[in-house]
Amino acid sequence: MKFNKVLENIKTYEAGKPIELVVREFGIAPENVVKLASNENPIGTSPSVEKTIIANAAKAHLYPDDSMFELKAELGKKYQVNENNIIIGAGSDQVLEFISRALLNENESVLMSAVTFAMYEIYAKQMGAKIYRTASFEHKYNEFMEAYTMHKPKIVYICTPNNPTGDATSKEEVLRIIEAVGKESLVVVDGAYMEYAAAKDTQYAITPNDLLGYENVIYLGTFSKAYGLGGMRVGYGIAQAELIRELYKMRPPFNISSLSLAAAISAARDESFVEASIALHQEQIKRYEDFAKENGFSYIESYTNFITYLFDEKMNSTNIADALLKRGVIIRDLASYGMNAMRITIGTEKQNDVFFKHFSEVIA
Amino acid sequence: MKFNKVLENIKTYEAGKPIELVVREFGIAPENVVKLASNENPIGTSPSVEKTIIANAAKAHLYPDDSMFELKAELGKKYQVNENNIIIGAGSDQVLEFISRALLNENESVLMSAVTFAMYEIYAKQMGAKIYRTASFEHKYNEFMEAYTMHKPKIVYICTPNNPTGDATSKEEVLRIIEAVGKESLVVVDGAYMEYAAAKDTQYAITPNDLLGYENVIYLGTFSKAYGLGGMRVGYGIAQAELIRELYKMRPPFNISSLSLAAAISAARDESFVEASIALHQEQIKRYEDFAKENGFSYIESYTNFITYLFDEKMNSTNIADALLKRGVIIRDLASYGMNAMRITIGTEKQNDVFFKHFSEVIA
Repeated sequence: MKFNKVLENIKTYEAGKPIELVVREFGIAPENVVKLASNENPIGTSPSVEKTIIANAAKAHLYPDDSMFELKAELGKKYQVNENNIIIGAGSDQVLEFISRALLNENESVLMSAVTFAMYEIYAKQMGAKIYRTASFEHKYNEFMEAYTMHKPKIVYICTPNNPTGDATSKEEVLRIIEAVGKESLVVVDGAYMEYAAAKDTQYAITPNDLLGYENVIYLGTFSKAYGLGGMRVGYGIAQAELIRELYKMRPPFNISSLSLAAAISAARDESFVEASIALHQEQIKRYEDFAKENGFSYIESYTNFITYLFDEKMNSTNIADALLKRGVIIRDLASYGMNAMRITIGTEKQNDVFFKHFSEVIA
Repeated sequence: MKFNKVLENIKTYEAGKPIELVVREFGIAPENVVKLASNENPIGTSPSVEKTIIANAAKAHLYPDDSMFELKAELGKKYQVNENNIIIGAGSDQVLEFISRALLNENESVLMSAVTFAMYEIYAKQMGAKIYRTASFEHKYNEFMEAYTMHKPKIVYICTPNNPTGDATSKEEVLRIIEAVGKESLVVVDGAYMEYAAAKDTQYAITPNDLLGYENVIYLGTFSKAYGLGGMRVGYGIAQAELIRELYKMRPPFNISSLSLAAAISAARDESFVEASIALHQEQIKRYEDFAKENGFSYIESYTNFITYLFDEKMNSTNIADALLKRGVIIRDLASYGMNAMRITIGTEKQNDVFFKHFSEVIA
C-alpha cells in the first residue's frame, strides 16, 4: 500500500518518559520518582477541579456538549471576546494542528525561532511544508523580517514565553513583527506559559484582545500549565470569527472528553489556584537561579514554569540527564534541540530538594 | 489569507443536540429530557470505571503515559494481538482521521455504502478525496465490486454493524470483499457496535484476529458503546504492525487524556458490564420491534444498540423528530441521510416508557 509522500519524512514523536516507565525500567518505587520534565503544575490539581471530576465521574458514558457553550462563555468573560472568536482543542496542540491543516501544503513554508515548541515542525511536516528557522532562539525582529522577506512563509510562529528555552518576547516586539508581516501569512502567538510571564513583568503580558484587531493573527492558550490540567488536554485559539470558522472545518466533533470539558470550565473559574501556582513558582525558581550561580554555570532568564540550564563543554547534558533518570529524577535533556542544556520544571519545595540533592551528586 | 482549497467543500459538522441545549432552548428540566440520539450506553458508567475516575481525579495535572502500555496490554489480551498491532485514538473517529491523512489526497477516492457513518465522508473531504457510494445501505458484495473495479478507491469502508441503519454484514461476506480488494487499497472494518452483533448472531461476529492476516485491512473498535465510555473518547485500530507504524506518524502526542486512559483500562477489565448492557438491550429492543409492528410501520433488523424506524409517505421523520424534541425526547432524524427514517437508541426501561408515551401521542 502506498502512503502519502509526507510520511517518508516523519519520525514518530517520542514523548518525555512518564513516571510509569521509570518505575518499570529502573525498578524505582513511584513515590520516589520526581518528574520535572513536562512542565506539569507541581501544586497538582485544583481542589475545585477535583470536586468537579468526582461529581461527573458517573457521566463518562455521555457525550459532551459539542458546542462547548459554557467553556466558551468562561473564556469570553476572562478575555472579553465573543464565543465565535474561540475554538477549543485537545490541548493548544490540536489548534496548531487545525491551523496547519487549514493553511499548509507542499508549496508553503513556516517560520519559527531556532529553538521552540517541537509541534510546530511536526504538524508542518505532516502537511509537507518547508520549515525555516531564525538563527537565535529568541524572537528577534530583524531575524524574523530577513527570513520572512526571503521565504514568505504562510505561518509565522511566535512562542512567548518560549518553550523549551523560557525566554519571552515583549508585547512591543511581538506587535512590531505582526505589523510587518503581510496579510497573506498567519501569525500564531502561542501563549501557553503566558500567565507566568504576565505575573513577572507586564511588558511581556499579551492578551488575546491585544491581537484581535488583526485578521491574520491567532492567540493560543492552554489549561495545561498554570491551570493545572496537563492530563486533561484542553487548550484554545482566539482570533477573528472568520478565521475561527475556517479552523472549525478541521475540528473533529467531540474533540475533548466530557470530563475534560467539565474540568476546564471549573479551572477557568478558579483564578486563585493560578495565583497560588505562580506564587509557589516565583518563590522556588530563585533556588534554581542561585544554584546555577553558586555552581558556575548559566541559565536563561525564565518567564515560564521551568528553567533552562546551559552547560559549557565540561558538562554534558545527556550524561547528566541519564544519571538523573537512573536516580528517579526526570528532566528534559535539550540535546535533541541542538543545545547542551536541560529544561527543569520548577517543582514543589520537596521535589526541588530531591532534585538538588541528586543533581549536586551527579555533577560533583 | 488563502486557506487550502479543500476547505471550500467542507461544512462544519453539527453534532446531535446535547441535553444542555434542549434545556436551554425549550426550558425543559434536565431530569425530564430523554436523550436517545447518540447511542450512549443507557446503563450509564460502569461502577468500576467510576471508581477509577474518582481515584484519579487529583491527577488531572499529570500527562498520561503516552505509550499507553497498560491499555494496549489489556486489548492485546482481549484480542490475542501484540502491542505493536494497536493504535489508540480519541474515539475510533481519530483512527479514521489518521487513516485518511496517511492515505488520501486529491487524486484518490474512497468507497462506502449508501448510508453509513458520517465521519468517513468528512475526513475524506478534508483530504480532498472523491467519495463513491454503493446503491444500498447494506454492504453488498456485487455493488462493492462493481464500484471498486470502476474507481479503484484507496479506502473501502465496511461498517458492520452499520450506523445509522443497524444492519450487519456477515463475516463471510466481509472476507469475500476483502479477498477481492487489491493490496493497493485499505479495507477498514469498523466494528464500533460489534459487541451487540456478536452477541445476537455469531455469523456476524468478526474479531481483529480474523483480519490480521491481511496487510491491507484494519479493524476499528471503541469503548464508546458497549463499554459505556462515550464521553471519554477512546477507540482503537488493530492491524499489521507496519500499517500501525505509518498511522502513528499522524498521531499527536497525548491524544487521549489521563482520565480517559485510566477509564479505558478499567472498562477493558469489566466484561460483566458489557454483558449487562447487552442483556438489557436485548430485552428492551423487543418493545421497539413490537411497537413498530403494532403501529404498521417497518424497521431495519438491528445488530446494534439502536433501532432504525422506516416511515412511508404518511409520516415525516423531520416533523416527528421536531415534535419529540419539544417534548424533551431527543432521537436522530435521518432526513439528512436521504431517508424518511429515524434512529432511536434503545434506552433503559424507564427511558423507553417515556419515548413510547410521547411517540404514541405525536403519531396519533
